Amino acid sequence: MKKRPSGKEGFVQIAGAGPGDPDLLTVRTLRALESAEVVLFDRLVHPDILKIASSATLIPVGKKRGQNQELRQDRIHRLLVRYAQAGFRVLRLKGGDPFVFGRGGEEALALKEAGIRYEILPGVSSFYSVPELSWIPLTYRGVSASFGVFTGHEAERSSGFSWSCAASMQTAVFLMCKENLARIADRLISHGRAPSTPAAVISKGSTAEERIVVSTLAEIHGDAASLPSPAMLVVGEVVALRSVLHPGLTDGHLADRVTA
Amino acid sequence: MKKRPSGKEGFVQIAGAGPGDPDLLTVRTLRALESAEVVLFDRLVHPDILKIASSATLIPVGKKRGQNQELRQDRIHRLLVRYAQAGFRVLRLKGGDPFVFGRGGEEALALKEAGIRYEILPGVSSFYSVPELSWIPLTYRGVSASFGVFTGHEAERSSGFSWSCAASMQTAVFLMCKENLARIADRLISHGRAPSTPAAVISKGSTAEERIVVSTLAEIHGDAASLPSPAMLVVGEVVALRSVLHPGLTDGHLADRVTA
Repeated sequence: MKKRPSGKEGFVQIAGAGPGDPDLLTVRTLRALESAEVVLFDRLVHPDILKIASSATLIPVGKKRGQNQELRQDRIHRLLVRYAQAGFRVLRLKGGDPFVFGRGGEEALALKEAGIRYEILPGVSSFYSVPELSWIPLTYRGVSASFGVFTGHEAERSSGFSWSCAASMQTAVFLMCKENLARIADRLISHGRAPSTPAAVISKGSTAEERIVVSTLAEIHGDAASLPSPAMLVVGEVVALRSVLHPGLTDGHLADRVTA
Repeated sequence: MKKRPSGKEGFVQIAGAGPGDPDLLTVRTLRALESAEVVLFDRLVHPDILKIASSATLIPVGKKRGQNQELRQDRIHRLLVRYAQAGFRVLRLKGGDPFVFGRGGEEALALKEAGIRYEILPGVSSFYSVPELSWIPLTYRGVSASFGVFTGHEAERSSGFSWSCAASMQTAVFLMCKENLARIADRLISHGRAPSTPAAVISKGSTAEERIVVSTLAEIHGDAASLPSPAMLVVGEVVALRSVLHPGLTDGHLADRVTA
């Protein structure tokens, strides 16, 4: 590691990069990118965003296939502390928002325990902005006034997970749903959600390879089978609003099976 | 209304301004502000944000006390259509995000029906960024892997609202909770949420007058009684993380009753 002139105190900004498009960075995170000396970034962060930090040392810390998640997180904590203690201005750049399924809290705690100065920079979270950019609002007057957000993993693994509550939410969003898509849909139906409920899977949201399939809860698994991870599932009548609100679509029924 | 040179097609951008701080605008919304000819803005939007649109005609459309909400919304639709039809580049600027409790969907539909070009610009939604800026993450590994977001109004008025599901969410957020705070807390407790569950009320989030009270579900109503609207309630063990993650606080128990 190159050394800073001694005496300068390190500082860490834990920032959300938003859903992908560099124009959906906040002004604060943009400035942080421009002034950072070291950027630790998740692999999901768009390459065009990293180009902004042209004078910084860029360190990827994203998940590799088969890598132990806890070892990876420990490494991130170690790197953050090490670069900050060496006096660098460090940007920890995460997809979406750092406090919404982002483990930014754990990183803040590691910095606090090491006595390092840090701040948090919110970002546009993907769980609502990716559907939004596909013209699916999580709320709409008279259709949905509440929503629940879950992860596919948690839903499958947690013994305390309430499927009947997930099924009763006006709008339910499942992140990282691809592996468990069939089971999630089946469980929601067996816990009372109508099989005809509109449902959408959005794969690789906010990237050039984004794909969306709109279907029903009963058929979404078959219809979205070919979409790659990462993918999110949105369930609820709001999904049917896509064809209503999208400037380029005419209002149709769900049998249209929109794929864009 | 001043007239545009004829022949130019109008265009509307429906944008989220984020939680308040101008630095939490996205780059796209910042550019939209700089290039807009007409800005229709909610009264909650921070004055410093409006200063960016220095060359635009600024039209407040926020809610006035006692004003009928539907009449107000109809007026917004009429103004959007009228300025766009006159050939202007119009920015509809809303607090937070336009598709998360923002009625942006209804405005998009009004524009579609009038045959006007429009696009949607996501913003940093307040329901997670306001707690985040107070060091309360909605999710945290081992503490909460899901959350539900509700409005105080809906919870009180909707016959289909499931209090037992709201009570069972690991993290529950109630927006616009001030009037119903006592009843929301009572209902959550009577539907099985422990009275000792950490709870926070954040009033006027992301403004200079922001105040936060951290307490328990049983005592939050009394403790937060003096806080003005608008206010949001966060319920769940994640609230206790505030003193853990905040760089300026030492880890304490909830009896500390943090007010900042």
